Amino acid sequence: MTQISSERGHLDCLFRPKSIAVVGASSDPSKIGGRPVALLKRMGFTGAIYPINPMSSVIQDLPTYPAIRNVPESPDLAMVVLPSRLAPAAVEACISHGVRAIILISAGFGEIDDTGRAIQAELAERCSAAGVRLLGPNCLGVVNVQDRVACTHSAALDFAWPSLGRLGIVTQSGAVGSYCYALAVDRGLGLSTFVATGNEADIDVADCIAWMAEDDQTSVILGYLEGCRDGWRLRQALTAARQAGKPVILMKGGSSDAGAQAGASHTGSLAGADRVFDAAFRETGAYRANSIEEMIDVASGCIGLEGNFPTGRNLGIFTVSGGVGILMADAATEFNLSLPILSDAAEAKIKSLVPFATSRNPVDATAQILNDFTIMTSILRTMVEDRNFNIITLFLQDLGRLDQYVDRFREEIFAMKAERPSTTFLICGGFLPRVAREFRAHGFLIFEDPRRTVHMAAALATIGAGLKAADGSCLGYKLRSTARSADAAVDGTLDELQSRALLHQADIPFVPAEFAGSRGAAVAAAEAIGFPVVLKVVSKDVAHKSDVGGVAVFLADANAVEMAWDRVMKSVAKAVPDAVIDGALICAMVTEGTEVVMGVHRDPAFGPVAMFGLGGVFVEIFNDVSFGLTPLSKDSALSMIRNIKGFPLLQGARGKPGADIEQLADILCRLAAFAETNQDTISSVELNPILAGPRGAVAVDALVIRERNDARIR
Amino acid sequence: MTQISSERGHLDCLFRPKSIAVVGASSDPSKIGGRPVALLKRMGFTGAIYPINPMSSVIQDLPTYPAIRNVPESPDLAMVVLPSRLAPAAVEACISHGVRAIILISAGFGEIDDTGRAIQAELAERCSAAGVRLLGPNCLGVVNVQDRVACTHSAALDFAWPSLGRLGIVTQSGAVGSYCYALAVDRGLGLSTFVATGNEADIDVADCIAWMAEDDQTSVILGYLEGCRDGWRLRQALTAARQAGKPVILMKGGSSDAGAQAGASHTGSLAGADRVFDAAFRETGAYRANSIEEMIDVASGCIGLEGNFPTGRNLGIFTVSGGVGILMADAATEFNLSLPILSDAAEAKIKSLVPFATSRNPVDATAQILNDFTIMTSILRTMVEDRNFNIITLFLQDLGRLDQYVDRFREEIFAMKAERPSTTFLICGGFLPRVAREFRAHGFLIFEDPRRTVHMAAALATIGAGLKAADGSCLGYKLRSTARSADAAVDGTLDELQSRALLHQADIPFVPAEFAGSRGAAVAAAEAIGFPVVLKVVSKDVAHKSDVGGVAVFLADANAVEMAWDRVMKSVAKAVPDAVIDGALICAMVTEGTEVVMGVHRDPAFGPVAMFGLGGVFVEIFNDVSFGLTPLSKDSALSMIRNIKGFPLLQGARGKPGADIEQLADILCRLAAFAETNQDTISSVELNPILAGPRGAVAVDALVIRERNDARIR
Repeated sequence: MTQISSERGHLDCLFRPKSIAVVGASSDPSKIGGRPVALLKRMGFTGAIYPINPMSSVIQDLPTYPAIRNVPESPDLAMVVLPSRLAPAAVEACISHGVRAIILISAGFGEIDDTGRAIQAELAERCSAAGVRLLGPNCLGVVNVQDRVACTHSAALDFAWPSLGRLGIVTQSGAVGSYCYALAVDRGLGLSTFVATGNEADIDVADCIAWMAEDDQTSVILGYLEGCRDGWRLRQALTAARQAGKPVILMKGGSSDAGAQAGASHTGSLAGADRVFDAAFRETGAYRANSIEEMIDVASGCIGLEGNFPTGRNLGIFTVSGGVGILMADAATEFNLSLPILSDAAEAKIKSLVPFATSRNPVDATAQILNDFTIMTSILRTMVEDRNFNIITLFLQDLGRLDQYVDRFREEIFAMKAERPSTTFLICGGFLPRVAREFRAHGFLIFEDPRRTVHMAAALATIGAGLKAADGSCLGYKLRSTARSADAAVDGTLDELQSRALLHQADIPFVPAEFAGSRGAAVAAAEAIGFPVVLKVVSKDVAHKSDVGGVAVFLADANAVEMAWDRVMKSVAKAVPDAVIDGALICAMVTEGTEVVMGVHRDPAFGPVAMFGLGGVFVEIFNDVSFGLTPLSKDSALSMIRNIKGFPLLQGARGKPGADIEQLADILCRLAAFAETNQDTISSVELNPILAGPRGAVAVDALVIRERNDARIR
Repeated sequence: MTQISSERGHLDCLFRPKSIAVVGASSDPSKIGGRPVALLKRMGFTGAIYPINPMSSVIQDLPTYPAIRNVPESPDLAMVVLPSRLAPAAVEACISHGVRAIILISAGFGEIDDTGRAIQAELAERCSAAGVRLLGPNCLGVVNVQDRVACTHSAALDFAWPSLGRLGIVTQSGAVGSYCYALAVDRGLGLSTFVATGNEADIDVADCIAWMAEDDQTSVILGYLEGCRDGWRLRQALTAARQAGKPVILMKGGSSDAGAQAGASHTGSLAGADRVFDAAFRETGAYRANSIEEMIDVASGCIGLEGNFPTGRNLGIFTVSGGVGILMADAATEFNLSLPILSDAAEAKIKSLVPFATSRNPVDATAQILNDFTIMTSILRTMVEDRNFNIITLFLQDLGRLDQYVDRFREEIFAMKAERPSTTFLICGGFLPRVAREFRAHGFLIFEDPRRTVHMAAALATIGAGLKAADGSCLGYKLRSTARSADAAVDGTLDELQSRALLHQADIPFVPAEFAGSRGAAVAAAEAIGFPVVLKVVSKDVAHKSDVGGVAVFLADANAVEMAWDRVMKSVAKAVPDAVIDGALICAMVTEGTEVVMGVHRDPAFGPVAMFGLGGVFVEIFNDVSFGLTPLSKDSALSMIRNIKGFPLLQGARGKPGADIEQLADILCRLAAFAETNQDTISSVELNPILAGPRGAVAVDALVIRERNDARIR
């Protein structure tokens, strides 16, 4: 597959065209065909605008052409705002006339039915063959404030007109994106670029993020998506943004079954399991927001910081209210920030200033400051000079609502901030809008709610850490040419014996086992392995062996093995009358260790995805599992293991011996690499359980499902 | 203890005084002693105001008295705004002159040190003896808008002047309360009463909630607290509010260790484990908010609904954006709302109006509505008429920002709402403030963020359910006179044998067991009980028997018991050389069933609190436990059991036989009743584990800790 960054040239024709044709232009600026012309003019677009309409010779004071072929040059970009049935011919005409990018505003394609999906795919195919990039269909288009481009019919521009700024917005849903846009403008944020990708027949969110990663005007990227067709490209785009030092704040719809179901009917063709997106965002340092307001909060925080993200999670809390100090300390715990206490000297200094103050951190300067504001600034200075806090949150109640108060501390705290460019200051309080603007201009972030303030502090620290951890490995990644499974003949669910054989190639350690085709062979195998043993039926028609009485454990001697053989064969034959039974697997009985589960499954968007969890009820009832994308690094495998809630059990909680975490990570990496290498034939692998004890981990059972997949192999 | 509702009379003198003395009044309205006089005048207080100051004869145009004894009547209320050292004499003088309630604004008491705490307790004692109620010290006082009372020095009134409304605010922290007050006023909410209780030497949050429960002007109560001294009174107050049909929205500081630690230094004397407060709020239907903005959101929602809370959790989502529909569906899942799908007929009707619409629920009417707003109202009408949704959320994007749009759907949706007073309508979107006010006046709630909108829908449904479940049992509750433990001599940690003996009185089922004082007796006991058995050391010096090798399991015969006796005695003697070993308990070996844990511990605020959880790692690592207050009803015990995450295990997940849930609830109730009856001598009981199988549950181990507690017995 192509590397995402090589596609930039064409996208400049979309985002920064020198000339624009509007196919289906109208004289009425309130109509869908008239709006883009009007908006381009209002925006002050400096290149040529070519309205195309066979019925008019002048539209909105611009010379108008009957067809695109009559335009005297090949415009960089053509917007098609015709009904869907006319769109294919228009696209064809644009291609013939040499346009380099097309925005297909028209709806009525892939979001409607299979026919629409097919037409849309055909259009994309045509464009691709001609080297033309296509945005849409069913999209809201593009706004680029710096280059005065407004190729959209969005009503959002009626609600809020953009000013030039550093925020880029990319969205699959035009409405969600427009709503974010309006809220961002309300919040005083300036915009670099807005793009809504709609059905993504060609250009997708990943393309747009990659373009913004290289766009000098954009420094923060905000995005909304519901799924993607190619997770690999998304990872590359997010990695490119990270390498450019640009935070990406994303919201993904469809985190719940109900939402995903609604999403299926909304977009039709997009996919990817929600938790796998989490893994992709974690890998690339993208920040996942849970609400639109959180997205806007975080974006505004990122822009306010101008790249000076917190370099750690040490938080100092300064308040004029003990109560709010408590609430902020609660929030610090909730959002995983540390509250280092002050030195004895600093505490003494604070107590000397206000004997009743709380001096520990949270520091409560008390309402005493109203009598003497130098107390407030002295205490704050004592705090920030005592510990090199990464972040300071200040609760100033409603002081910011009255100039008479602000006048008494403004200069001093501006100076304190100026001395500490690398310390992030967030203020919680009520402010006059004018005063708030002034504080923002001096680098302070302002929020109204104490918990939200601390939440934002934590979000910005998380983003800072994500940007610092910049790892570009997925950009230059080539598929490793490790052992490919030779035996590609078998399709469907493999039995345990076949699964073991296949995974043997990946160096997965299994409990000693031997296949036995008869009662006598079973006894011989047990004697060779050593008692006690386990006997498990081997049949490709039986997926869940224990459900049909196909497993016997703790077999202590030959007699027990013989009785078990008879019992198991009878039970399976009764439960699954048509099953072809090959025999039984005789395995060593392992009791020591903690049950864990590992697996890899093929995600429709992201390809092979690794899974780790504690076994049994922990997976089934507590859903205590973690996911990791492939290629899976050792570090990522270790994080996956450490990130499950039950990790203390593997460390040896409750007197149990701990497991060998390094070895578990190695097995997980080998399993992931194997599944990735064989992604064209293997759709899922599960090792359940693996018994992880101090003397090593061994898989006790394995299940491989094969299914050809030629579609997307990286 | 007294029933909280009997104390109302005195509190009227605080909240609704006919005459007020201000002891320490000042001519300067910016000073702490001048502000209350100025504020009372500005508020238009109609009763007599008596400034007290020996240095002036007129203060702020009011005749002034040198001392309270010179006031020609006994004022209902006296505010003391003197430095702390002068406060005790002032309180004494107020009592002598017959005032009925005192607000002690002065700080410098219990929040400072033990001396302050002692003085404050003495003042409360004096007031109590004289039948005078005391608010404070270290408090912000009282505002009652209807009665034009403003007994406060709070700067909040400079930031935002109150209008009369139905919201009552009660807070321990003056600053948190003031901040909430200012945000509420910003949000356009009217106020009935504001009261800040400060150090709560006498009047506490519970008193104030109980008063507001009976106050006709208050219909919604918003509160902030960090702890309480008497959980029983709080439960009574919350129950009284519920019985009056008034939602109580609370925020509690100190949910985290860091916050609780900060709280300890803030308030000093308040207590109660955070999760026990959760249990108290759940019991009484109080809504716990996690942030100040959530509190204000919910309060404004409650006031907007005017008592018409959703009567269920069925949500219909109407949007003009598929994307926001998905986000709202995700949020519905997160906040536990149901999304019933529409009937085929309704879906067909919607499709006939807009072929591309999503008709399932969430319903996406698409941007088509911009062309014809009757489509929007027709689709919405089809929805609301098809299913009797309890709640409808509408995402209207930014339509509310332009009159030209609003004019085309306003009347029709106002009519729809008017026809359905019991359906809750929440709108998410951008609005002109004037348009938003108009919609609010017609019963719509408006929020900006889609997730927040759905969160509020869920919160209001939760509150509605809480109010409907009104159970006043704790108001009339008298301590049951069931079996009291006769043997009150033993103090400290009881050994297993003593614990079993004590709990036998509570009818707790235990595994069969016999005490053995010797090796021979052990064998005899094992033979009497039946093999296999467990042998456990009995010694009051050994609390954690297995940690010192004091337990041997699966003993299959006499020989095994003898060997185990020797091994255990040697091991314990080695590990705890000074331990007095009484012998061993021989118990039947039970292996069937799921391990659960039950306990009761004495909470400093709420008294005996019951706990239930799955045993082993589930308690220790997953913290999967639930709490319930005593007296514990069977229903509450069942909820506790059902509320743990691992409940499916008890229902028989993974092929295991299920446990007898009813029996478990009965045992839990008996345990709770026993601990409650003996709360003066027992500080904690733990049954860990209980093995719960299909044929019944038996406790395998028990630990009772005795500690006298004469302080607070209800």
